[in-house]
Amino acid sequence: MPSKQSEAVRKHWEAARLAVTQPDAGGPDDESWGDLTAEPREVDYLETEAGGVPAMWAVPKGCRPDRVLLCLHGGGFVSGSIYTHRKLFGHLAKAVGARALLPGYRLLPEGGCYPVPVDEAEAAYRSLLGQGVAAEHIAFAGDSAGGWLAVTAQLRAREQGLPGPAAALLLSPFADLEASGESFETSTDPLFTREFCRMLAHGFLGESIGLSDPRVNLLYADLSGVSPLYIQAGGDEALLDDARGLEEHARKDGVDVRLDVFPGMLHTFQMAAGRAPEADDAIRRLADWVRPRLGL
Amino acid sequence: MPSKQSEAVRKHWEAARLAVTQPDAGGPDDESWGDLTAEPREVDYLETEAGGVPAMWAVPKGCRPDRVLLCLHGGGFVSGSIYTHRKLFGHLAKAVGARALLPGYRLLPEGGCYPVPVDEAEAAYRSLLGQGVAAEHIAFAGDSAGGWLAVTAQLRAREQGLPGPAAALLLSPFADLEASGESFETSTDPLFTREFCRMLAHGFLGESIGLSDPRVNLLYADLSGVSPLYIQAGGDEALLDDARGLEEHARKDGVDVRLDVFPGMLHTFQMAAGRAPEADDAIRRLADWVRPRLGL
Repeated sequence: MPSKQSEAVRKHWEAARLAVTQPDAGGPDDESWGDLTAEPREVDYLETEAGGVPAMWAVPKGCRPDRVLLCLHGGGFVSGSIYTHRKLFGHLAKAVGARALLPGYRLLPEGGCYPVPVDEAEAAYRSLLGQGVAAEHIAFAGDSAGGWLAVTAQLRAREQGLPGPAAALLLSPFADLEASGESFETSTDPLFTREFCRMLAHGFLGESIGLSDPRVNLLYADLSGVSPLYIQAGGDEALLDDARGLEEHARKDGVDVRLDVFPGMLHTFQMAAGRAPEADDAIRRLADWVRPRLGL
Repeated sequence: MPSKQSEAVRKHWEAARLAVTQPDAGGPDDESWGDLTAEPREVDYLETEAGGVPAMWAVPKGCRPDRVLLCLHGGGFVSGSIYTHRKLFGHLAKAVGARALLPGYRLLPEGGCYPVPVDEAEAAYRSLLGQGVAAEHIAFAGDSAGGWLAVTAQLRAREQGLPGPAAALLLSPFADLEASGESFETSTDPLFTREFCRMLAHGFLGESIGLSDPRVNLLYADLSGVSPLYIQAGGDEALLDDARGLEEHARKDGVDVRLDVFPGMLHTFQMAAGRAPEADDAIRRLADWVRPRLGL
């Protein structure tokens, strides 16, 4: 049984569905996603730019400034922002004891089509390396489309001959842009139907790249040499098979990978951090897993 | 007619009433007040301490760091925080082009009875003066109980022989702790009944000070020498007569005072800043009024 606090996540996705299907009904705006998250407190937020990309530092009091989480927010390439995800990644950074850098990569329809977010994640990563942060002291983190980006940006870094990060934390990643999973049929997810996810992927990729192209579909990508991955998914989310498929595929490619499925939880249930026990448990597990990989 | 966005303020107070009358119904928590406010963006938030009081700086990009708003949040001495009001005062600071310091003064039941919040507001003010910020470059600001505090802290400063601030911005101030106004009868305010306000005042003051004592009731206080005051109130709020009474009393005491009443608005409607046109208009008026008084 999901906690009462995690029920707020379901209500959020129900309201988001209403906003998609009845845009004139005066539903919640894009920023309301972040209202799910309690203030982590004792975290400072400073807007900056990272490699030319608008960005935000979330800096927990007493953290190790030389350890950095590069945090890529979700939102299907059309929504989410450094503001909606400030608190989520603030919780994570505080639990890890590191700084978090949130790039505000461009979204659709304002020029954020593929590969722009990958370019901008790469630019933010390069800016960290340029500031003298060691690659082995950086972990990528991302939720939903940001989870896709946290892997794709690693593939880009490999292609460019950059050192890879120490690890990546993937929260409900959108791994299979073809949305082929059976979990679309079995989940009670209020928003993420197969058709909706394919529409998001098509809008992002345009006409020239297919949804199963190995450059963009993580289930077909060559993941060899990718950093250790820790994937979390909700047991009741439509993208559960994205997580399972990515785990299986990464393992075959020789990647050190862990998957935790949280029973009864929905997509990006970690947004209820500071309120829901399941989200707090998830944040703790992410921190416990990544800290030794960052030498903490 | 209130804008659709300002209706969210009414919904918030309705939900707050439910949380008061049915505490087990799983209503919104204390932090949700701040969800009314959109992110101002391009404002940094840094937790600090000010004279021993936990506090937060809200620092708009490109602001004049030598001009400071000392911002005292509302919440009836029992709720509200530097987190709920971060964005409201961020909007105000950004519009003014100054830094904002938000003291997280103690609340009830954790030791925040009278005069503790006044002591802590004074300590924060002294810390600003001690950092070399000129009194004439400081304005006090406060909403609801924070509006009460923005005046009471000035009386305290006068009593202590400190230079007063340049101005004070009072948003729906709780001026008359006796809650004697007729507007309690005529307003459609969902939460603030006369009884509720008296209960808050009694809880705050304890048994030893009466609700009409001139040390605590701004309608009976000696306001001579107080800085220019700009009061805003909602035309439909229960505390409208607090604002009217304070304006009249301040004028008699020789204070330069302005009152703007916003038709159809409820208590602290400015919390919808960044979303509701009435709130944005109010923030603009506050900034336009205070900027020349801060030499901006």
